[in-house]
Amino acid sequence: MPNALEQSIIDLAIRARLASRKTASLPSNVKNQVLLELAASLGDPAVQQSLLKANQIDVEAGRGRNLSSAMLDRLTLNPARIQGMIESLEEVAGLPDPAGIVNRMWTRPNGLRVGKKTIPLGVIGIVYEARPNVTVDAFSLCFKAGNATILKGGSEALNSNRCLVGIITGALQSHGVGDACQLVDSTDREAVRILLRQEDHVDLIIPRGGEGLIRFVAENSRIPVIKHYKGVCHIYVAEDADLQMALNIVENAKVSRPGVCNALETLLVNREIAPRFLPEFARLMKSRGVELRADPESSAYLPVAAAATEDDYYAEFLDLILAVRVVPDMDAAIEHIEKYGSSHTEAIVTNSYRLAQDFLDRVNSSVVLVNASTRFSDGHQLGLGAEIGISTTRLHAYGPMGLESLVTEKFIVYGDGQVRI
Amino acid sequence: MPNALEQSIIDLAIRARLASRKTASLPSNVKNQVLLELAASLGDPAVQQSLLKANQIDVEAGRGRNLSSAMLDRLTLNPARIQGMIESLEEVAGLPDPAGIVNRMWTRPNGLRVGKKTIPLGVIGIVYEARPNVTVDAFSLCFKAGNATILKGGSEALNSNRCLVGIITGALQSHGVGDACQLVDSTDREAVRILLRQEDHVDLIIPRGGEGLIRFVAENSRIPVIKHYKGVCHIYVAEDADLQMALNIVENAKVSRPGVCNALETLLVNREIAPRFLPEFARLMKSRGVELRADPESSAYLPVAAAATEDDYYAEFLDLILAVRVVPDMDAAIEHIEKYGSSHTEAIVTNSYRLAQDFLDRVNSSVVLVNASTRFSDGHQLGLGAEIGISTTRLHAYGPMGLESLVTEKFIVYGDGQVRI
Repeated sequence: MPNALEQSIIDLAIRARLASRKTASLPSNVKNQVLLELAASLGDPAVQQSLLKANQIDVEAGRGRNLSSAMLDRLTLNPARIQGMIESLEEVAGLPDPAGIVNRMWTRPNGLRVGKKTIPLGVIGIVYEARPNVTVDAFSLCFKAGNATILKGGSEALNSNRCLVGIITGALQSHGVGDACQLVDSTDREAVRILLRQEDHVDLIIPRGGEGLIRFVAENSRIPVIKHYKGVCHIYVAEDADLQMALNIVENAKVSRPGVCNALETLLVNREIAPRFLPEFARLMKSRGVELRADPESSAYLPVAAAATEDDYYAEFLDLILAVRVVPDMDAAIEHIEKYGSSHTEAIVTNSYRLAQDFLDRVNSSVVLVNASTRFSDGHQLGLGAEIGISTTRLHAYGPMGLESLVTEKFIVYGDGQVRI
Repeated sequence: MPNALEQSIIDLAIRARLASRKTASLPSNVKNQVLLELAASLGDPAVQQSLLKANQIDVEAGRGRNLSSAMLDRLTLNPARIQGMIESLEEVAGLPDPAGIVNRMWTRPNGLRVGKKTIPLGVIGIVYEARPNVTVDAFSLCFKAGNATILKGGSEALNSNRCLVGIITGALQSHGVGDACQLVDSTDREAVRILLRQEDHVDLIIPRGGEGLIRFVAENSRIPVIKHYKGVCHIYVAEDADLQMALNIVENAKVSRPGVCNALETLLVNREIAPRFLPEFARLMKSRGVELRADPESSAYLPVAAAATEDDYYAEFLDLILAVRVVPDMDAAIEHIEKYGSSHTEAIVTNSYRLAQDFLDRVNSSVVLVNASTRFSDGHQLGLGAEIGISTTRLHAYGPMGLESLVTEKFIVYGDGQVRI
């Protein structure tokens, strides 16, 4: 017999499954209308006031529990952040519907017409930390693709999430799909474990947060999970790189936002260019406050660098720290990336046609760039319109995931009486 | 400390991972050459003799262990079956390479050129029963897509599989990728559990076999699994169906090969057509020896039918047994399919444009057909060229999976110095 918590989660998963059959056949214009109505609700001063009040309860409780200032910042809503949600809803409403598309159709010798048509995945569970803006973002993308959503946000944001899901449900109800957004309304971690066992009712789990959360989800889930643990991103400066371009790209990749997963963590420099590149690079990094960890060969040019340990090459510093290594050639660079990398994002700086193509062919990380910053490894930047997450698992989706990653394809077959011989 | 069995499986998984980096960049013509050389080896009389000898050891041991005659039949190799393997290798060699394809590329406002390029999944583990022909089939498809393969076949076929993997490895070695096909050479079931924990070295597990095997794999795997448990396939005969076409399709779907997953298990008949359709249907089924299980309404027209239980509608009979139900309309038919179905394959027989399109839109099983037999739900029949399995999980692949399901897509980006602002 399931206990009360378990039963409540089974019930909400079943409600989501039933709702997903309705959302799957909503026309695009109805889905867009729901998103725009939700945006309008969030723009209503009375709604905003109640949302900010609910959020304040969370923030004050968080202060009482000594949350870090970074966590408190992510937890806090304000009119500007609500405006951000509204704009993102309007943006998602404006994106093309990824469901219902037949990209190709072919005819078999017996006259059967066979095609593949995109359909929603069904029910998507999002497990995330105390960031109330994710609530609206994740729901809007899942819903736009025709899915029902089950949200399990960080306990610290429960009041905010209750309020937000109430607003979302209001917009859904007026179109007969009130159950399409379910909140796991519990601060018990066991609730997540129970959710992760509902493989009959939930088609996909997307964890969003730190590596600890993601590992917890991956290890406890019986439902397919799309995830990435970390981004140990590399740039390889080839022997013929344009020095100024390499400096610009490395600076941007390391310094512009060191705390994100597409920031640069290890720089690989070709031996031939090292004497010209590294001294200038050292000056630039010093001026930007970047601490260097260097292998013996590169440290000859980097007087202030500490010695890099084996662990440094595996590390996602998420900080103004950069590991550096000189390599004899691209083979060695790729070997390093395969050994220490996380399959997230790698770039080469080169003017050689051959090196550029080889790097693009041989490096099988989820995003591979030539002469551009690793910071472009992002759904918006790559032109997906919006991003639900990043996958370094090769199944289903690899790299930044937009709306297209929230659908699958069924086969549709038009016959005129064919039987199999 | 891992024990000897565990260490041996970790070692072979690492060998497969390293080999997968080489197979990923083999040109198509080299991959095809390996497959054709393997076909030629299997055609060599001396090789055939040693293979048949190894297989005979398995078959005799199987007889001693009282394997069922069906299992013994699947275990047995003979020259005709080896010829089947050879032809299937030649077929796979002739298929287009699914890897290395850029289906689209777009340019961002800042000039970045972004594309998605297909790449192999990496290392694929196949867990299957005592069917030696699967050994060559599964390897050939995985390899053609550029993957390394780890094979764990049924213990009863171990001698046959050792011999086959020896022949495969011979063909691989002459092209420097001798480690690209690894055999889990153990009859200990613990070996499967260990393999299913190698999530760092294996990208995908495909179980092939009965529901018990598949559930065991799904429940024990930390690696993504693509699977289907069963095929409870439906045909809905609409009010305006062509009677003769409906009879032909139902007969083909039920009788042509009742033991396979795309065979018909439940027939849904519109109330309006039931009085005209069911009596003829009853005669036809009787003549083909099909036992019927009917709901009260249809049993009025089916004098010999037993009463259908709730369980009958959930059942995959895999036999000459068919459940029947009269429904008032297509809504009821779809409701039945959603409740009892397995998301595998459903068909409608109708002459109505609107009903045909509605059924194709609203039924989200992996294969949905109009006026054609469910038996077409098969990779070869749908034109995929070959089939590695069928998925009813919606992630990554849904329905019959051909070579295309053995690759994923990475992002490739061509820049000229762009940095993120």
